[in-house]
Amino acid sequence: MATIIVPKRISIRDDAEALRKACKGLGTDEKAIIEVLGHRNAIQRRQIRQAYEQIYEEDLIKRLEKRLSGDFERAVCRWILDPADRDGLLANSELRESSDEHSVLVEISCTRSSEELMGIRRAYHARFKRSLEEEVADHTKGDTQKLLVALVSAFRYDGEEVNAKLAKSEAKDLHEAIKDKKLNTDDVIRILTTRSKLQLRATFNFYREEQDASINKNLPNKSKNEFLETLCITVRCLQDPKKYFEKVLRDSIKRFGTDDDALTRVIVTRAEKDLKEIKDLYYKRNNVRLEEAVDKHTRGDYEDMLLTLLGSEV
Amino acid sequence: MATIIVPKRISIRDDAEALRKACKGLGTDEKAIIEVLGHRNAIQRRQIRQAYEQIYEEDLIKRLEKRLSGDFERAVCRWILDPADRDGLLANSELRESSDEHSVLVEISCTRSSEELMGIRRAYHARFKRSLEEEVADHTKGDTQKLLVALVSAFRYDGEEVNAKLAKSEAKDLHEAIKDKKLNTDDVIRILTTRSKLQLRATFNFYREEQDASINKNLPNKSKNEFLETLCITVRCLQDPKKYFEKVLRDSIKRFGTDDDALTRVIVTRAEKDLKEIKDLYYKRNNVRLEEAVDKHTRGDYEDMLLTLLGSEV
Repeated sequence: MATIIVPKRISIRDDAEALRKACKGLGTDEKAIIEVLGHRNAIQRRQIRQAYEQIYEEDLIKRLEKRLSGDFERAVCRWILDPADRDGLLANSELRESSDEHSVLVEISCTRSSEELMGIRRAYHARFKRSLEEEVADHTKGDTQKLLVALVSAFRYDGEEVNAKLAKSEAKDLHEAIKDKKLNTDDVIRILTTRSKLQLRATFNFYREEQDASINKNLPNKSKNEFLETLCITVRCLQDPKKYFEKVLRDSIKRFGTDDDALTRVIVTRAEKDLKEIKDLYYKRNNVRLEEAVDKHTRGDYEDMLLTLLGSEV
Repeated sequence: MATIIVPKRISIRDDAEALRKACKGLGTDEKAIIEVLGHRNAIQRRQIRQAYEQIYEEDLIKRLEKRLSGDFERAVCRWILDPADRDGLLANSELRESSDEHSVLVEISCTRSSEELMGIRRAYHARFKRSLEEEVADHTKGDTQKLLVALVSAFRYDGEEVNAKLAKSEAKDLHEAIKDKKLNTDDVIRILTTRSKLQLRATFNFYREEQDASINKNLPNKSKNEFLETLCITVRCLQDPKKYFEKVLRDSIKRFGTDDDALTRVIVTRAEKDLKEIKDLYYKRNNVRLEEAVDKHTRGDYEDMLLTLLGSEV
């Protein structure tokens, strides 16, 4: 369930005008920006952007980028985008960092639906004039490249049919691979990148039954090996996306200074999806409400924006 | 340009009724079936199928399958399908044959537009309850698997931006690979499966300029090696799809007894697309009109159906 609170009646034109007023003249009225954008869904935000462009012949995002700064700017400008375009942008940002860390790419390719991932690839073409898979291939190498290119290129079957016999046999294959410490095989990559999510959950369940431990626990976690780390995130995202997002939030807040990029990303991308359940998981795990943690670790307009997306009255 | 001739005004209901009449009682009126279906475009055929189902509470394709037989049945039943669904079916048929021959898969993944290929993958889910890429992975192995899975999973950028520097450098990479007879590398597969078609054509042009021969000529043709053969078809489909289709037609007719599967496939899948240009190429290359060749090598209702799709009055 979503966490954002959207009023029953809104006027797109009034919203565009309120935003113009908030971004005109000497000062900027950040509160007004949060009041409008923090309470609108993706379709409404798109309409507001279009209306703003029509009335003022100016791109609203460019105006906001000029007026706002830091984490607050990033949160607002990411939030305002179409989800598919935003995911393409997030993927591209991670690629441009050229680090060994690929959690955003894995997250985007494993926690979105098949049609959503397709939409992201389409949006990527439009914005970057290249395909997502070719960019991934250009920025990675070896086994990590194989895994990531296959993940972003997948269009998994998302129906209900599950083949139990296959799940059992592939659970065994995965167990063998973990036991022999040979996880970079074509077979492991094929299983994780082509099977449907329901099929993989059946496979992971068989694994747990047979081995008396979840596959996630048996994988070499925090291995400082680029491929293995990417593989672990893949399994976690496929096994239980909400649990995965809870952990990203927890880690982002636990980190010294807070990892605002990750915190913003999860809140912005899940606020219209399943942030309610992620919040519940967070409370269960940490005995602290996510809102309290955000309140403690962030400040000012940025804090207000995140809390608004989390469904708090600020 | 398409070759089929569609009358300006048609009545979907009349068409459904004519087909019912042609498939009712003791005999079957094949001429009437060709007269209707051979002159309707994809949208009209879908509407006719829907209308038929509504009026007679029966699947038109099932009825036709019962009434018709052999190559004629196959041509009509393939023709009547939505193009994306038909391509999914063609891919599946080839996969179930479990041979070393993968030209249909390559053809479908390299000569359709990115959005068309996406639609085929979607139709594949609906019909087979699995993803196309997982079926390809299950039925192939080694380098051929790598190439084919990447080909069917591709969503190539299809805009106009071309990077000439990149094309030049990748033309060199391809030349090195051909020279060293090492075509099964990750790099060769990456180039052929992720770059946009325009980018690849620029690459192939640079290759020709530098080597004074087309890449197609320099590849080890007819090598009886599964991977190399698949790779050659890939290059030919990407380089010049119409030329590729002309050759498939030529080979299918040249073969002893005619390869009706290939002949039907190309005519049925291109009749609404570019069969006009393929016909022109055929004439240029063989000094015989494609219609004459079809007339000479096929018979009966099957012949009439193909000639109708080729735009002849039969």
